[in-house]
Amino acid sequence: MSKKLDFTPQWFNQPTPKGTYRSLFKWADLAEVKHPNSGLTQLLMDRFGITREQLNQPGALALDIVEDTIPSRIDPAHLDFLRQTCGAENVSTGTYERASKSYGAGMLDALRLRRKLLENLTEVVVSPRSHEEIVDIVSYANQHHIPVYVFGGGSTVTRGYEATISGSICLDMRKHMNRVVDFNEIDQTITVEAGMQGPDLEHILQNAPTSLKAKRAYTLGHFPQSFMASSVGGWIVTRGAGQNSTYYGKIENMVISQEYVTPVGIFKTCPQPAAATGPDFDQVMMGGEGTFGILTRATFRVCHWMPENHVKFSYMFKNWQDAQAASREVMQGEFGFPSVFRISDPEETDIMMHQYHIADSFADTLLKRFGFRPMQKCLMLGFTDGEKAFCRNIDRKIRKICRKYGAFELSFANVTRQWEKGRFTDPHLREDLMDYGILIDTLECGVTWSQMPEVHEKVRAYVKSRPNTICMTHISHCYPQGANLYFIFIAKMDTIREFLDLQYGILEAITKAGASISHHHGVGKQTAPWLEEQIGKPQMDVIRVLKQHFDPNNIMNPGGTLGLDMSAAQAERRWSKDLEG
Amino acid sequence: MSKKLDFTPQWFNQPTPKGTYRSLFKWADLAEVKHPNSGLTQLLMDRFGITREQLNQPGALALDIVEDTIPSRIDPAHLDFLRQTCGAENVSTGTYERASKSYGAGMLDALRLRRKLLENLTEVVVSPRSHEEIVDIVSYANQHHIPVYVFGGGSTVTRGYEATISGSICLDMRKHMNRVVDFNEIDQTITVEAGMQGPDLEHILQNAPTSLKAKRAYTLGHFPQSFMASSVGGWIVTRGAGQNSTYYGKIENMVISQEYVTPVGIFKTCPQPAAATGPDFDQVMMGGEGTFGILTRATFRVCHWMPENHVKFSYMFKNWQDAQAASREVMQGEFGFPSVFRISDPEETDIMMHQYHIADSFADTLLKRFGFRPMQKCLMLGFTDGEKAFCRNIDRKIRKICRKYGAFELSFANVTRQWEKGRFTDPHLREDLMDYGILIDTLECGVTWSQMPEVHEKVRAYVKSRPNTICMTHISHCYPQGANLYFIFIAKMDTIREFLDLQYGILEAITKAGASISHHHGVGKQTAPWLEEQIGKPQMDVIRVLKQHFDPNNIMNPGGTLGLDMSAAQAERRWSKDLEG
Repeated sequence: MSKKLDFTPQWFNQPTPKGTYRSLFKWADLAEVKHPNSGLTQLLMDRFGITREQLNQPGALALDIVEDTIPSRIDPAHLDFLRQTCGAENVSTGTYERASKSYGAGMLDALRLRRKLLENLTEVVVSPRSHEEIVDIVSYANQHHIPVYVFGGGSTVTRGYEATISGSICLDMRKHMNRVVDFNEIDQTITVEAGMQGPDLEHILQNAPTSLKAKRAYTLGHFPQSFMASSVGGWIVTRGAGQNSTYYGKIENMVISQEYVTPVGIFKTCPQPAAATGPDFDQVMMGGEGTFGILTRATFRVCHWMPENHVKFSYMFKNWQDAQAASREVMQGEFGFPSVFRISDPEETDIMMHQYHIADSFADTLLKRFGFRPMQKCLMLGFTDGEKAFCRNIDRKIRKICRKYGAFELSFANVTRQWEKGRFTDPHLREDLMDYGILIDTLECGVTWSQMPEVHEKVRAYVKSRPNTICMTHISHCYPQGANLYFIFIAKMDTIREFLDLQYGILEAITKAGASISHHHGVGKQTAPWLEEQIGKPQMDVIRVLKQHFDPNNIMNPGGTLGLDMSAAQAERRWSKDLEG
Repeated sequence: MSKKLDFTPQWFNQPTPKGTYRSLFKWADLAEVKHPNSGLTQLLMDRFGITREQLNQPGALALDIVEDTIPSRIDPAHLDFLRQTCGAENVSTGTYERASKSYGAGMLDALRLRRKLLENLTEVVVSPRSHEEIVDIVSYANQHHIPVYVFGGGSTVTRGYEATISGSICLDMRKHMNRVVDFNEIDQTITVEAGMQGPDLEHILQNAPTSLKAKRAYTLGHFPQSFMASSVGGWIVTRGAGQNSTYYGKIENMVISQEYVTPVGIFKTCPQPAAATGPDFDQVMMGGEGTFGILTRATFRVCHWMPENHVKFSYMFKNWQDAQAASREVMQGEFGFPSVFRISDPEETDIMMHQYHIADSFADTLLKRFGFRPMQKCLMLGFTDGEKAFCRNIDRKIRKICRKYGAFELSFANVTRQWEKGRFTDPHLREDLMDYGILIDTLECGVTWSQMPEVHEKVRAYVKSRPNTICMTHISHCYPQGANLYFIFIAKMDTIREFLDLQYGILEAITKAGASISHHHGVGKQTAPWLEEQIGKPQMDVIRVLKQHFDPNNIMNPGGTLGLDMSAAQAERRWSKDLEG
């Protein structure tokens, strides 16, 4: 499979033109592309029976301009209020602008946009300039019962801010609400506005001596794959996790305090790192997904930026069972945690062998000789973060554990470096695949170690029951008591219905297997119909009680988010009565 | 001050007789005593002007038997129900039994009991035998609007379960609800009933190969000073912290899932170690202090029991500023955290010099020669937990940081070992001191590093404004962003009023300085009047909303806990209208 291709497919190779439907679903920077390499292309051809000829005839590229054809139905009086509050230049009712702030990076979004299906658009996009303007808007919206959606970075994969209730305002936090409010080097905390984009925050922290007049460089340590199109606010309200979470923790472990504007007033949490004064209100608000109020500012703990201490490692295990057992032993060893820590199941490992050019390399020859078999062997990779000797000790201990399980050390093969190189750019691949009718999507869940084998087996069995469907799985966020399981499925599909059948079936399989329905993507409107079944009615009741308290008029991200006010279609686990037929 | 005493005070030296008032406030085991050593005795004589003669004439020892003089006012029909549900042998209405389950280890409790003031007794003590019996009792109590209090281990210092509303039932969880429900060695979790006592749980875990048929020994790592008289349920509902929390975390970091019986039904949280499915319900329920429902079972993560890896350390700093800066640097160094990590302020250090016999020792001579001055120098002590090389690296890094700040290494002087020896027995000292009219009490709070100097200074200034009052302060639970401050005050006092004036004044000073009003003691009824001022009305409103949801008839730990339904006297920050006069 790994032989060099003797042709180059006709990948779309230009900057995506502005104003087009394609630009609405194009990942992150419009100018950037990343094509499948020859190994991956050959694999797709083999698996899906795609020919060289077909790879020269892409399907719909959706390069049409989004015309200004859907008039905003916002009340002119509301529009006047918004223009007076935020300045006319910060209020837009254009179809393109509204579509760009109503969709995210979910597969259903991309499928609809490729088909030029525009539904559930907000009526007006407003870019508030301050916390105070948001207070005024929420107060006005509450008085007039206007739905309010919030756009952060644009990478929701759960239809997080899709304006399913008509007549809404969408607040674009990215434009102005992106400033540093405070930096406290004694406490190692930074306070920023919620629309601060991920890369901007990291740039500021990593250059703290100049940007913040600090004594040294810092990092938040939060690097989700969506990094390039994500905001601080989005991370928090969805309980996101970065790829380095095994050392740095999920976002809920990084947040020190928060400030929300809710319909019943300002809600601010306390800055002390621990307290015994009732429930932990930070953990009450995080996960609210915009349904309780609008996060305007957050204070994070920051860590020392010490990339020079990274120790990279990678190992190959003979089978999935050993890989899981070794990973668990690492997490329970009490010598500190690695930072990035990814363990791929056999099918993902086989695909990575091609993607990272290990197949047919010297390392591959050795692996074969030592009895590491295709569709059995499993790759572990990662690196450390923290103080130098701390990092070195973790590396030593991981080596010892992996050897005990008969793993083959691949660290010399630069696997981790290759993974690292692609970590934020891989999402670009999706456009190319979709241009040829191949869908790639992901779903993830949380499990205990003892649940893991069964959840993996059952979800995988469901996906593989569909002909010609790739199901790659990895563990990417680990804890002493469990981990996440991240499923990537790749299939050739023609209709939205086909895609939804697969997605809904996987959600069903995850729920039935007893896993937590989301580890870090959040719930949004997509996963909402499965939430109550998973967490139980008593917990759902508490979400409803909090919602009723903070937002009695149901104006905050309404229309099915977190399963709060689902339409009949949504409750029946259908996406849209109209479009699903 | 450190010269040997040439006499032995007439400390009460017998086992405390059962059934007496003294037995109600005696710390933990009735047979055990621990007297102030000569250094501490001499210091108390010097500070409070107590003579040798006075030390031979103790005050009221409260050795009277608690007569069965306060009839239970429980409705006989309720009593019948309880006897039928739990068995007659598990239902008691005796005055002594009721008093023993209504008071804890707070100073106000001890002061009242020494004066034979019995107020706020529950009407009946019931010892349920199962989760199901608790479900039945809560359902019955809710139907009949009967207040329900819950007794765990008996060490509340905040009047946590004092039956301030009359006509109540108290559930004694200690008698039967103390079993292991499940142990999962793959996930490293243990599920126990909420009445399991701290020492019992640790005994089971540390002997896991025999008690649980496990492959190795484990620990929870939760060792509060109240260890000997504390329960799993008490730890959780108050958000407690053990003395090893800098490595192991507070109890809220150890809990994986919980099950509560509330008036509106069973509330169970999910076992996955992380999720993105709305608010974190474990963190909503913890801190409820029994006002939302009754915790019946909890699942904890457990760690490897490896006491052989402890590395003990102790250092003396020239001043409080350096000690704080070095501690902060340790916590922000990203090489892992020490387990026990205590830093004493100058006044506490001076007293520890006597208590641990460092004063006038060889070490003291060296310290004096190197310019470490009384009422300036500060002691840091601690030890590590975790894997061996991980521990050694932490010890090395701490040494490096302490040297940078000019600290003197005292590790040779066995200071940490002496501290460790007394860590669970020091509370016994209180009885001896009180026998001679000397009160010793504590209050604690949470601060950020940048708040710490001001909070310390202001609270201390308030305490020292009272003549002849010792104010010892230490940091005992550290985080990268802050720590707790633990204040111990010792004073000669004659009346309850004097004590309350000091206690209330300190709470006032903590609140004004902007610290969190409790780091790990919880709020109870004692600290409740200051809660809303500290966390703010919007947060207090959420506590009220949760209360209204879970307990619409206000039967769960009612009467001022968490500031929910305070009496006029309590709201005015008085303990009792009747007794305060």
